[in-house]
Amino acid sequence: MPKQDFAMSRDANCIFCKIVAKEISAAVIHEDSAVVSFLDIGPLAEGHLLVIPRDHYGRLTDVSPDVCARIGSVLPVLGRALLTVTGASAFNALCNEGQAAGQLVSHVHFHLIPRRSGDALGYRWNAGTYAEGRAAELAAAYQRALAQHH
Amino acid sequence: MPKQDFAMSRDANCIFCKIVAKEISAAVIHEDSAVVSFLDIGPLAEGHLLVIPRDHYGRLTDVSPDVCARIGSVLPVLGRALLTVTGASAFNALCNEGQAAGQLVSHVHFHLIPRRSGDALGYRWNAGTYAEGRAAELAAAYQRALAQHH
Repeated sequence: MPKQDFAMSRDANCIFCKIVAKEISAAVIHEDSAVVSFLDIGPLAEGHLLVIPRDHYGRLTDVSPDVCARIGSVLPVLGRALLTVTGASAFNALCNEGQAAGQLVSHVHFHLIPRRSGDALGYRWNAGTYAEGRAAELAAAYQRALAQHH
Repeated sequence: MPKQDFAMSRDANCIFCKIVAKEISAAVIHEDSAVVSFLDIGPLAEGHLLVIPRDHYGRLTDVSPDVCARIGSVLPVLGRALLTVTGASAFNALCNEGQAAGQLVSHVHFHLIPRRSGDALGYRWNAGTYAEGRAAELAAAYQRALAQHH
């Protein structure tokens, strides 16, 4: 069940929960009743931000729709501030969902990574194609999955 | 000003607006009053999804908080469906905001990219560090920017 309130739920061993509770210091730039944002201490570029829910959720797929809406709602304003502060012309908003996707801290977080033309950052892009009919098959499988239990 | 309703606004030349209007077919897996999701026709992995606002916004920083909340709210359920349908153990949620960040279609979109251990995907990660005091300086600059006009 999605939580309807934003009551604190925390994991005693989680470094991000400790930052939320101010038991570990961080360069916090925004906090509200659902979301905290601070500078990543291992930045890919100057001004690299993290945006996290105040409550402890391991993975993005564990987050309630309401809390994920609150995360979404702050991305544009934080992104505009990032462009202003860093002078970057663009950024990547990235959530690594699960270990195989590169998630290192088990408290869901979005990275906002400043980008400039010619930097060596970005996602490895090697696009494929679908054989005739395969995309429709996959879409049908998605529709079944969404109709069932997701 | 953020829009308070989800009235259609479209760009006549935008391929994603044409998908929303069903003038171009796509393998759509979800649509609601604010958001549409469909399979990327140039997938990085089978089942690679796009999640877009129904209205036309060029970049993530142009999106109203309300609409971005609606995008955020569907990411967990779409992500769970992705894990079920593809059998992947993880995924990346990625928004390329601006051309230098890899944005190719000028209608804001989030990628959901299935991930497995040992695939050749993912973000190029080359983390740096901050000199003493630099993170605090940047945080102060962010706080000023957020207090002003963002």
